[in-house]
Amino acid sequence: MNHTTENNGKKQPSTQGKTRGVRTKKEAPVKKTVGKQEAAVSQKRVGGTTRRPRRRQTEQTASVPAVPVKLYPLGGLGEVGKNITLYECQGDMILVDCGLVFPDSDMYGIDLVIPDFTFVLQNKDRIKGVIITHGHEDHIGSLPYLLREFNLPVYATRLTLGLIKNKLEEHGLASSANLHEIVPKRKFKLGCFTIEPIHVNHSIPDAVGFAIECPAGVVIHTGDFKVDYTPISGGPTDLTTIAEYGKKGVLALLSDSTNAERPGFTVTEHKVGESFATLFRRAEKKRIIIATFASNLYRIQQIIDLAVRSGRKVAVSGRSMVNNTEMALELGYLHAPENVLIDIESINKYPPEQIVLITTGSQGEPLSALSRMAAASHRNVRVGPGDFIIISANPIPGNEKMVTKVINGLLRLGAEVIYESMYDVHVSGHACQEEQKLLLTLSNPQYFLPVHGEFKHLKKHAMTAASLGMPEKNIYIGENGDCIVLSRDGLSLGEPVTAGAVMVDGLGVGDVGNIVMRDRRHLSEDGLVIVVATVDEASGQVLAGPDIVTRGFVYVRESEELIDGAREQVCHTLAGMSAQDMRDFGNVKTRIRETVSSYLYRRTKRSPMILPILMEV
Amino acid sequence: MNHTTENNGKKQPSTQGKTRGVRTKKEAPVKKTVGKQEAAVSQKRVGGTTRRPRRRQTEQTASVPAVPVKLYPLGGLGEVGKNITLYECQGDMILVDCGLVFPDSDMYGIDLVIPDFTFVLQNKDRIKGVIITHGHEDHIGSLPYLLREFNLPVYATRLTLGLIKNKLEEHGLASSANLHEIVPKRKFKLGCFTIEPIHVNHSIPDAVGFAIECPAGVVIHTGDFKVDYTPISGGPTDLTTIAEYGKKGVLALLSDSTNAERPGFTVTEHKVGESFATLFRRAEKKRIIIATFASNLYRIQQIIDLAVRSGRKVAVSGRSMVNNTEMALELGYLHAPENVLIDIESINKYPPEQIVLITTGSQGEPLSALSRMAAASHRNVRVGPGDFIIISANPIPGNEKMVTKVINGLLRLGAEVIYESMYDVHVSGHACQEEQKLLLTLSNPQYFLPVHGEFKHLKKHAMTAASLGMPEKNIYIGENGDCIVLSRDGLSLGEPVTAGAVMVDGLGVGDVGNIVMRDRRHLSEDGLVIVVATVDEASGQVLAGPDIVTRGFVYVRESEELIDGAREQVCHTLAGMSAQDMRDFGNVKTRIRETVSSYLYRRTKRSPMILPILMEV
Repeated sequence: MNHTTENNGKKQPSTQGKTRGVRTKKEAPVKKTVGKQEAAVSQKRVGGTTRRPRRRQTEQTASVPAVPVKLYPLGGLGEVGKNITLYECQGDMILVDCGLVFPDSDMYGIDLVIPDFTFVLQNKDRIKGVIITHGHEDHIGSLPYLLREFNLPVYATRLTLGLIKNKLEEHGLASSANLHEIVPKRKFKLGCFTIEPIHVNHSIPDAVGFAIECPAGVVIHTGDFKVDYTPISGGPTDLTTIAEYGKKGVLALLSDSTNAERPGFTVTEHKVGESFATLFRRAEKKRIIIATFASNLYRIQQIIDLAVRSGRKVAVSGRSMVNNTEMALELGYLHAPENVLIDIESINKYPPEQIVLITTGSQGEPLSALSRMAAASHRNVRVGPGDFIIISANPIPGNEKMVTKVINGLLRLGAEVIYESMYDVHVSGHACQEEQKLLLTLSNPQYFLPVHGEFKHLKKHAMTAASLGMPEKNIYIGENGDCIVLSRDGLSLGEPVTAGAVMVDGLGVGDVGNIVMRDRRHLSEDGLVIVVATVDEASGQVLAGPDIVTRGFVYVRESEELIDGAREQVCHTLAGMSAQDMRDFGNVKTRIRETVSSYLYRRTKRSPMILPILMEV
Repeated sequence: MNHTTENNGKKQPSTQGKTRGVRTKKEAPVKKTVGKQEAAVSQKRVGGTTRRPRRRQTEQTASVPAVPVKLYPLGGLGEVGKNITLYECQGDMILVDCGLVFPDSDMYGIDLVIPDFTFVLQNKDRIKGVIITHGHEDHIGSLPYLLREFNLPVYATRLTLGLIKNKLEEHGLASSANLHEIVPKRKFKLGCFTIEPIHVNHSIPDAVGFAIECPAGVVIHTGDFKVDYTPISGGPTDLTTIAEYGKKGVLALLSDSTNAERPGFTVTEHKVGESFATLFRRAEKKRIIIATFASNLYRIQQIIDLAVRSGRKVAVSGRSMVNNTEMALELGYLHAPENVLIDIESINKYPPEQIVLITTGSQGEPLSALSRMAAASHRNVRVGPGDFIIISANPIPGNEKMVTKVINGLLRLGAEVIYESMYDVHVSGHACQEEQKLLLTLSNPQYFLPVHGEFKHLKKHAMTAASLGMPEKNIYIGENGDCIVLSRDGLSLGEPVTAGAVMVDGLGVGDVGNIVMRDRRHLSEDGLVIVVATVDEASGQVLAGPDIVTRGFVYVRESEELIDGAREQVCHTLAGMSAQDMRDFGNVKTRIRETVSSYLYRRTKRSPMILPILMEV
């Protein structure tokens, strides 16, 4: 079988440094009775708390080596976004999720970032399908980029499928896609995997986790989750099913780490509704504008319900808000009495106290509806002292300044703006520490792999697991590209595989790499100076130029003397070169670059990109 | 006098929109008994609270118009940073502070941003001096750029002067500077202004506010402040002096709005010391590394004291940390027993439990000492499992992601990292709402102008003042460039003056404007495509080229076909032009730009900068 070859047949130089508090099969033969293993020496202490011994359910006495399952996290570890994990057992493979991540501010010009699919494509004949936990971009956003490579069957719940379809339509892939609807509690098989979707609470309806059963055992993969005992619809996270799996024996838990730094429990979504009710009363005669995430249909439903109760019409603004509400109404995930929803074009026909406007832009995105309102450039909405605006979201790290800019703009226009945490106008979609403990306790896994989060989140989540008495050697903080080999006999690391980030810029996927990015950064910092000249092929004489063209360097009209100086320097350099020298264009360019660069740095303390261009006639 | 001409002699079209809840002299003659004025109709409601009538101290009956003082905020309103305010009374002027602000992430390549000094320079003969509240960059950072224009006398406390001197030395201005040391409670005169420095608590020692007395009355200008009843040294903010001024009558209060959104009181700096003491015990045998602001000498003193008590040596890392501690030791603002401070070069001679390292980089600045430690590239410090690291600062908005990156890096290296708010390892340097109320109550001003903050902070601070019963018409939220005319008769707005942001890039001050910035942004997003050709002057024939050079657009080696296609398009376009057409270079360039731009957008959905260059032979 494949796993034995990879673990015993090959050398593993590159994985040596990666075995954190975990011993590989190579290092020591694994004892069969896991519960009695002595504590392995841990390279990385997980936590400072005392650990009580924990009874394990796997007192097995098989004499043949246990069947392993391999987990390849290809994204989502050490980052928030682009979640994707490949599972392999007995030659069969499945993918869980296929998300994207939005670019960092230093990824100039990049639209989005997707996982490196190299390893997926190498194994495409063995992958039985991709199973999706929920419809957020960081879990479905890369599907079009994968499906255009090969037509993998997609398994998702109804709303999630609706969102995927919209996305595939934009890429012209909808008609050919192989989509399958799944339902919580209804198991389905993909190769040797039997998968049970488990209903979980999140900030979007129809989210599920998965119990993934295979010859190696059961792996619980939570996806994004929280535990809300009083959700707006759909009931609480199916803790009973998780507990049942836990009782029967769970090999591993992969659980959402996003809020691992937050103690306590995430507050119920209902609390937001209560806050809205208070604020609706306070708004009195004003128009109410609420910005939130377009996918949070629970939030939108609560706003519609309150609008009905307070005799207001509801309009929506922003492309994704319009698309999502339309689809959700159609699929029955949103409910509104007739005549409550009105078109944004007609909001000005009603007095302000009869309007609630739901809009995108809660993250201060520069082109969003709310940003346009704040900049007084929205086509239908003029914000003023008659507006009561609620920003029902927290800024995602990195967006703080953009959100503040929007708030300042709205306040300047005279609107009342509710944005602080003290008003409880937002709750997270992710589990806090107590919920994470609940999942760990109910599923009672042999191994724990924290997922979905930056390293600091994964680390905290690992510490939380350790605080429950889980042995450190059974907790592993993975990295994208790891091959984590799990069986009831032990956890080890196989040969790492290709994983990484592929940048998408316009139609180009992966054609912007380090060199292009380095040039964009350089150009952004100090701009560009082009030195161009035409040289006679035979004599090496300069026939035209040297001319100097700059962009993004200095304000040219006020810098003539500086530019003239640079041209003189180039002339001087060229004059000092023989006809022979002039024929070596590489050398000439280097000399020009050095001359101009040092002259300009001396004069300006700036280092623009210097681009010598020589034309031969 | 100047103020009468400006207010009555000229039209004020541009100020009309700026009178927020305030009536100008033009609109209605101001009654003499301010306390009895009926409430003006307010364009902008300040708060939703009920207002109790407030007894004012200025029941005056003078029959001549009161002498006004004019305040020109030239920076620091609607922004956090570059604080600078010009005061004018009876022809005399003084400046308060002269700060800078660090560039936003969309100011490509900019090193720092200083105020527009146009109005200051127009009035340089009337300005008697610049008085400085404290030594932070947002209050002193622009001094070199002003002093190189004209040698204005500078008045500051001892530590602040020390920091200013260091700064001026870097700019070669120290020897010529006209520096004067000031001391709290010791009044000094500048023209018709009598100034009393008032000791205030802040996150740097030797901070003062000012009571600025002139023929118009007394203005209290707090600078940055908080109220710490148990500070590390220097005693609490001098509330008594403020109360005395309040009793005698204060015309206006200008007060720090930074923390206007935070209820309650800022916790004492001592609390940080207590947390450190607990953490030092918890660190046990580990090396302790603490990152904090280099100017927070209180924090540094507490760390030194704790190090002494726990038998550890102290080393410092980071240029500003080294410079500041050296100067503070020399001037007596830091105290350390002999042999406690050691050089960073020798830390590895001691066992980890005998070391505390104080370092810069608490904001995750990419080149800082802590960032280098996190990237395992620091010359003297190798971080590992034996390190206990405390980040004693909160991320300044915009820096969150950089700080997280550093934390992830340090955690990956195995260090224990304390960074969460739950550990109380940082307190703010600014007053919260209850302290702001205290200042408002003690100074009991006729007018209130919130300063130092973005619009949302100023607005909140204004609402806090209104909640104390201050009439809305006596509260004014200003903008940079306002001319605020204050007298006991009323508050009005004069003609606005030039104010704005000047970008500094290398040696260039103000030579990077909108055009250069727009080009840098364009270049950063999609890079650059140069089309170059040599044309025969006489015949209009293309002698060399067209060649295409790109940077930051696509990875050239993998895009030959795309680039060849673009060249063909250009050839085709040029071939279609007559010799006559070819002589109009402007037209040729436009045609090339259009051709290449639409071709590349069709193929890539990107819009690089297209730069046609034609050379004539």
